[in-house]
Amino acid sequence: MFQNVLIGQSGGPTVAINASLAGAVMQAMNDPKIKEIYGTRNGIQGLLNRRIIDLKQSIKTENDIQLLKETPAMALGSCRFKLPAYPSDLYAEILKVFKEYNIGYFFYIGGNDSMDTVKELSSYFSSIGEDIKVVGIPKTIDNDLCGTDHTPGFGSAAKFIATSVAEVTYDSSVYSTPSVTIFEIMGRNAGWLTAAASLARLNGCSAPHMIYLPETAFDVEQFVTDLKNVSKKVRHVVIAASEGLKLKDGTYVAESEQSGKTDVFGHKYLSGIGKYLENVVMERLNCKVRSINLNVLQRSASHISSATDINEAFEVGEAAVRFALAGKTGIVAIIKRISNNPYTVKYDYCDVNEIANYVKFVPENWITPNGYDITDKMIQYLKPLIIGEPARHIKNGLPEFIRFDFKLLRSSV
Amino acid sequence: MFQNVLIGQSGGPTVAINASLAGAVMQAMNDPKIKEIYGTRNGIQGLLNRRIIDLKQSIKTENDIQLLKETPAMALGSCRFKLPAYPSDLYAEILKVFKEYNIGYFFYIGGNDSMDTVKELSSYFSSIGEDIKVVGIPKTIDNDLCGTDHTPGFGSAAKFIATSVAEVTYDSSVYSTPSVTIFEIMGRNAGWLTAAASLARLNGCSAPHMIYLPETAFDVEQFVTDLKNVSKKVRHVVIAASEGLKLKDGTYVAESEQSGKTDVFGHKYLSGIGKYLENVVMERLNCKVRSINLNVLQRSASHISSATDINEAFEVGEAAVRFALAGKTGIVAIIKRISNNPYTVKYDYCDVNEIANYVKFVPENWITPNGYDITDKMIQYLKPLIIGEPARHIKNGLPEFIRFDFKLLRSSV
Repeated sequence: MFQNVLIGQSGGPTVAINASLAGAVMQAMNDPKIKEIYGTRNGIQGLLNRRIIDLKQSIKTENDIQLLKETPAMALGSCRFKLPAYPSDLYAEILKVFKEYNIGYFFYIGGNDSMDTVKELSSYFSSIGEDIKVVGIPKTIDNDLCGTDHTPGFGSAAKFIATSVAEVTYDSSVYSTPSVTIFEIMGRNAGWLTAAASLARLNGCSAPHMIYLPETAFDVEQFVTDLKNVSKKVRHVVIAASEGLKLKDGTYVAESEQSGKTDVFGHKYLSGIGKYLENVVMERLNCKVRSINLNVLQRSASHISSATDINEAFEVGEAAVRFALAGKTGIVAIIKRISNNPYTVKYDYCDVNEIANYVKFVPENWITPNGYDITDKMIQYLKPLIIGEPARHIKNGLPEFIRFDFKLLRSSV
Repeated sequence: MFQNVLIGQSGGPTVAINASLAGAVMQAMNDPKIKEIYGTRNGIQGLLNRRIIDLKQSIKTENDIQLLKETPAMALGSCRFKLPAYPSDLYAEILKVFKEYNIGYFFYIGGNDSMDTVKELSSYFSSIGEDIKVVGIPKTIDNDLCGTDHTPGFGSAAKFIATSVAEVTYDSSVYSTPSVTIFEIMGRNAGWLTAAASLARLNGCSAPHMIYLPETAFDVEQFVTDLKNVSKKVRHVVIAASEGLKLKDGTYVAESEQSGKTDVFGHKYLSGIGKYLENVVMERLNCKVRSINLNVLQRSASHISSATDINEAFEVGEAAVRFALAGKTGIVAIIKRISNNPYTVKYDYCDVNEIANYVKFVPENWITPNGYDITDKMIQYLKPLIIGEPARHIKNGLPEFIRFDFKLLRSSV
């Protein structure tokens, strides 16, 4: 009996999520057991509202697959919907939709929270004896998923960050006046992305001169002392700081120091770690200082994505479909690194219980004892992930992206 | 008699300034009348301190020229030094340095302020009968120089901005919740760069939905009314706002509204227009809102430079040397647009008095009557400037840049 595939995307965007969608669709298209390939708009949320589209209507040609691989964020839309733990009426509701569309395989592309949905749904279907395979496809620029060597989306974000740090280092050093430049980099829990700023050094750039990860408790007095020392040797200091820097007591640095302060509208002052450190440097070192928040640019910059990242995202999507068709459920497709020289990976899977709701932190011994740099182990780990320039459609001097046909299907019932 | 060339760079960085340096050096190398080609570190400031380097030691091969064209900011360093009006002792001091190094031709690559130096120096040399040619080479991401159709550096910044707006528009529309995304874009006086955000629309993106240039007086109540109307039709509104938005009375919006407020250290709250508008939207529309300050990324992003821009920057550098060797002084090399279809330019020159200290604003009829968009005339003007992907050296997945040999020459005296 033929069965259909349903794919959803969830959580924060990366530039590689659509490549995983493309890989999953390609693999499903090539499998004779699969009839229809559906997408759900805005993840589980859209599923509950029957906002289902026919992916074969949107992805028809090789060129569509290629464009999808180059398009940032989520072509299907995302959600921040956490499925409540079983029992809840929602499970029967979801099953009803799956039955209506004859879904035999459900793929959810997402991060820690989305893997929780994979975990809950797969265990629900198993518990009631329903033969529906639920498989997770990992993504997050934060690279903080356990079980996988790294996550699709991370390498491209790392490449944008390293490139921007290298470029801005040139910019910041044109004047003879000493200066401090601070990059605020995403990653609220883990420091992988901030560590990736170190890759700027690969081609001879000396920056960043200080790297602060959330894995190390931040002490502002130590920061001032260390920066004063570094400034004696470096005229234009470049600092990479994670948005998630925390004090010894676990509170966020930016938050704790600014609580109680309000802006012109009486809102709590919402500035981040960059502005906070900028103020510290201005006050304590009295020198020229600028902070740069890389903001959502670091997860959207598809124009400088890593070919390694995009290809792996595609292949892990393909692998997920293969695993599901081989009968696996309650798993997440993962990337295993075989070697660094030459860089080789293989695709495998991992029980979702080992991934959902866990966070992979930067190992302590990958951070230097002074607390403001990373070791060579980190460089060796990161280096292969930013390699390669993928093919890109350029029109009018700008990237071209895919646009989906969002005509919702009528329910079959 | 042989004479030597001296080249300096000044003002704010762009990704095309080194291409102009490369063009000027190439042209000078090919001219039998030129013996040495010197560079001054940090513009006029370095000149006064005799921080002179031999450019032939740093630029030896075709590959060096190519790398220089790909390197952002200023390989020679910059300064923000305004030469005081004549008479001043500095003029005799500068002349002394010129004599020491037998400089017959001085090229200054810069914006409005730097062109003032070209003006003052050329008129000083003429007035005392010294046969030293002084020629300006235009640059500024702001595109606010008079006399030239556009400025080198602008097209690449425009390309980064349009690309980022297109990419982030995808990112901002993944959730079903309505949202407002605000881009803060450089250009304190003129709105050219902010207008360039409109190019994001060329490949089918609907954003930006509102564009605010400093040429139109900003009224916060009108903004709220207009945004409320736009939000009725657009779920994810994207706004491009110039950092230089001013109220009717000429004060900067961000500044005026925040005066008196201080941060945790008692500093005046230095947040820009993005954060200001973010607060307005949060307070008055109570919806999800995010502001993105493109900051120095927009003038440093050489990885997405425009081939048109880089080539023109190179050629205007060559042209400047040709004009000087043909006896011109007190001029600025400029770009004249011949046609849009096909896009063709020629290089000419303009009296520096028509350029120095003037600002080229966006014409009133290039802004729509509602005050928050630009007309098709602007699109036609901007469109050709972002075309083309220049050759790029990539190593380790990252751009390679040139590193100059900064061994200072010993004065010949």
